[in-house]
Amino acid sequence: MFESAELGHKITKAAFAEEEPKLREELLELQYELIEKAPFSVVVVIGGVDGAGKGELVNLLYEWMDPRHLTTHAIEEPTDEEGQRPEMYRFWHRLPARGKIALFLGSWYTDPIIDRTYGRTRVADLDRSLDEINRFERMLSSERVLVLKFWLHMSKKAQKKRLRELEEDPSTSWRVTPLDWERFDLYEKFRKNSERSLRMTSTGPAPWFVVESVDEEYRSLTVGRILRDAIKKRLAERTQNAVIPTAPLPRSIDGRDVISNLDLGATIRKEHYEEQLPILQGRLAQVVRDKAWRKRNAVIVFEGSDAAGKGGAIRRITGALDARDYRVVPIAAPTDEEKARPYLWRFWRNLPRKGKLAIFDRSWYGRVLVEKVEGFCDEDDWMRAYGEINDFEENLAEAGTVVVKFWIQISPDEQLRRFEERKSTAFKRFKLGPDDWRNRDKWDAYQAAASEMVDRTSTEYAPWTLVEGDDKRYSRIKILGTLCDRLEAALR
Amino acid sequence: MFESAELGHKITKAAFAEEEPKLREELLELQYELIEKAPFSVVVVIGGVDGAGKGELVNLLYEWMDPRHLTTHAIEEPTDEEGQRPEMYRFWHRLPARGKIALFLGSWYTDPIIDRTYGRTRVADLDRSLDEINRFERMLSSERVLVLKFWLHMSKKAQKKRLRELEEDPSTSWRVTPLDWERFDLYEKFRKNSERSLRMTSTGPAPWFVVESVDEEYRSLTVGRILRDAIKKRLAERTQNAVIPTAPLPRSIDGRDVISNLDLGATIRKEHYEEQLPILQGRLAQVVRDKAWRKRNAVIVFEGSDAAGKGGAIRRITGALDARDYRVVPIAAPTDEEKARPYLWRFWRNLPRKGKLAIFDRSWYGRVLVEKVEGFCDEDDWMRAYGEINDFEENLAEAGTVVVKFWIQISPDEQLRRFEERKSTAFKRFKLGPDDWRNRDKWDAYQAAASEMVDRTSTEYAPWTLVEGDDKRYSRIKILGTLCDRLEAALR
Repeated sequence: MFESAELGHKITKAAFAEEEPKLREELLELQYELIEKAPFSVVVVIGGVDGAGKGELVNLLYEWMDPRHLTTHAIEEPTDEEGQRPEMYRFWHRLPARGKIALFLGSWYTDPIIDRTYGRTRVADLDRSLDEINRFERMLSSERVLVLKFWLHMSKKAQKKRLRELEEDPSTSWRVTPLDWERFDLYEKFRKNSERSLRMTSTGPAPWFVVESVDEEYRSLTVGRILRDAIKKRLAERTQNAVIPTAPLPRSIDGRDVISNLDLGATIRKEHYEEQLPILQGRLAQVVRDKAWRKRNAVIVFEGSDAAGKGGAIRRITGALDARDYRVVPIAAPTDEEKARPYLWRFWRNLPRKGKLAIFDRSWYGRVLVEKVEGFCDEDDWMRAYGEINDFEENLAEAGTVVVKFWIQISPDEQLRRFEERKSTAFKRFKLGPDDWRNRDKWDAYQAAASEMVDRTSTEYAPWTLVEGDDKRYSRIKILGTLCDRLEAALR
Repeated sequence: MFESAELGHKITKAAFAEEEPKLREELLELQYELIEKAPFSVVVVIGGVDGAGKGELVNLLYEWMDPRHLTTHAIEEPTDEEGQRPEMYRFWHRLPARGKIALFLGSWYTDPIIDRTYGRTRVADLDRSLDEINRFERMLSSERVLVLKFWLHMSKKAQKKRLRELEEDPSTSWRVTPLDWERFDLYEKFRKNSERSLRMTSTGPAPWFVVESVDEEYRSLTVGRILRDAIKKRLAERTQNAVIPTAPLPRSIDGRDVISNLDLGATIRKEHYEEQLPILQGRLAQVVRDKAWRKRNAVIVFEGSDAAGKGGAIRRITGALDARDYRVVPIAAPTDEEKARPYLWRFWRNLPRKGKLAIFDRSWYGRVLVEKVEGFCDEDDWMRAYGEINDFEENLAEAGTVVVKFWIQISPDEQLRRFEERKSTAFKRFKLGPDDWRNRDKWDAYQAAASEMVDRTSTEYAPWTLVEGDDKRYSRIKILGTLCDRLEAALR
């Protein structure tokens, strides 16, 4: 992969001087067109060997384009806010809005390659990281992010020469640290691991461009041209999403599914409920007060049809907790900042710190429920959502987050009864809107969507719990019990 | 202030049981009305002596209302993101959107009162903090935030009894720490300082409510009723902003102002420019590389009429810097998340970390320039903005941020010439919109607004620099020179 970047590519200063003004102008014009139309965002990853001029390249791009619409993220140690969340959080929360360009100096590639080079991880770990990265970048690309990755390469000999030169010039000597030499000694290993990484992650939607970086002018022109051509091509495409043909989802031939299989007649006696509720709430309170809990946290998801009893169940959970220890996140329409970014962004930004619980009242599953049924997104969008959601929840689980998901199911008759009740109770009126009546007409479609969702996203690390909801007492006890079991198991 | 909260107020459990259901219902209904109409947000500050039941009160409010639309902020040690910004940042970035209620357990009162009680500060420091708080809360109130402050009080004897009780019960003993007893020993001092604080900050728009907290039922009902009545009253008010009659701003009788006084003919020779530019850029680069700079940062503001040369000046600054060390923040229309919060919120969220520069291309001064001239906000809004902006910049300066502000002035003829040039240059076309032509018609109004702005917001800690802009070379050199002087002075 690096061979053709060790040929000693160079261009003359004169050739550079001739091409540069035109390239600048084109880049600037494309940048303004991007801002104006905002059809997609651009993520530029800049990696490569030390001393290859990554920083200089960024500075040059700032000179060429309008710095007001560029952002640079130099990824260093995670901040304490970041350190308390899944690893990918530091990249997710920095994703640019549509119309903007973000440059990443240091990226999701840095840690996997460096850790492997220092022998802190094994090849299998590296491969697994690369696999995750591929899925992440495929998601970005589907979500209208143009991903361009540049690897600034130098041969070992050239790198040594470059570091020496930097050291000898008093105005640049501060840039060479002992760490650079330490890493230079690992050049072969670093080269091998980065080559493997690039090879495994150079995909159609997010290709790598290896750029020989010994000659500054060659490096600059090469990157500038690629950037120009890629943005121009993407701006010219009529549809911004790659539309991938999807096979239709089959429905079971006998019409039975996991949800219709539920016994909605399940019920418990009032006395049993009144006896169990405080016991379960006590268990829950104890988990959160456990010292070991300070290193864990939980994401609790509630989904279900309207009036299924999500709010009531949530209040039985929060009733056991100190208000400082949890946050309820009600999911409504996305704000415009959220709409300008990949779908899952607004959930990433609401992840809890260590020791806390985040309770989502509706969630990322909206994509495969309401958005799918009502046609708010393309078929391709909700089809790929299953995989993206599984990846997201795996990220959470790996960071020590307990993911607990409840689907509360009620019968159409029970829903009607509850709607009528809401109409007649003063302080419940607000909970009933025209949408609620409309959604009733699509009962079967919603049930099929929910059943499909459970099948495709019930994983070992984030299983669904289906809750029979016609009897509120029964469902609350089942929910609290499941939650306690899951949290206690996590502390064991 | 505390006398009537030491009378042993209490109500019977029966009276509580009778009133509670109705109060809950009313609170819930008001909460939904607030969400639906979203005319204002509610900030509830809960302070008081240790053991007075602040946490229990919050939990009760969560039980009474819909926890999905409440947020609690337990303010503890600043995170590292917060620690790098002005003190008030931790409160600003937590301000709720309109329609939402936020409870603050620990607030902007905590540190000033505790620091004074431990003798870490003097009375004058406390008073100064309280003064700042008054201005902050007045701003909140003007910006459609309903501020309610509850102080849970107990006599020394009652507190001692309460702490003992908590300690003796195994299920609550964990809540009493040695720190609580340490603070108990300081009861008298704490009482004195909190009394002073409450007295000085109990204002019309943000009053304190002192609530005796020995009897739980009394405490709960008192707070619940006040909350209900305050939200109800505010919802019923037709205008949500207090419209304060303002005196007209006088214009100088002879028509002269600081801006018309500028000599726009100021110019420098090209050779001088080409010699000075690299020298100044070198000085700038050196400041940012200085070790002492890691503890400081800068906020640089650019204002001026269209085509005044803001972008070009910014590029001459960024050209000297590493892209990792600065961020350009272009101010466009606010997003809906920003519109739902106090005006300055969107600037607070863009403040730089230590060691960095944030360059604002247009800024918070939009309020007293375009919004004032075009009538986008009420007279009261821009009148009070001068004071709020001065407070904001003082906060910055106190946190070690160097605030540098440039107003670039050009003549109408020069602007016309630049507009024509933009029309004819391909990649500059995007920089010219219909707004630009329209604003030209209001030249005098904009100039008067700018002159007024300079008069009212040029402070010792954040002075304006007026820049003669007709000669771009002259203005860039003046800007870079001023910036270097200010930054170097800060490191001395």
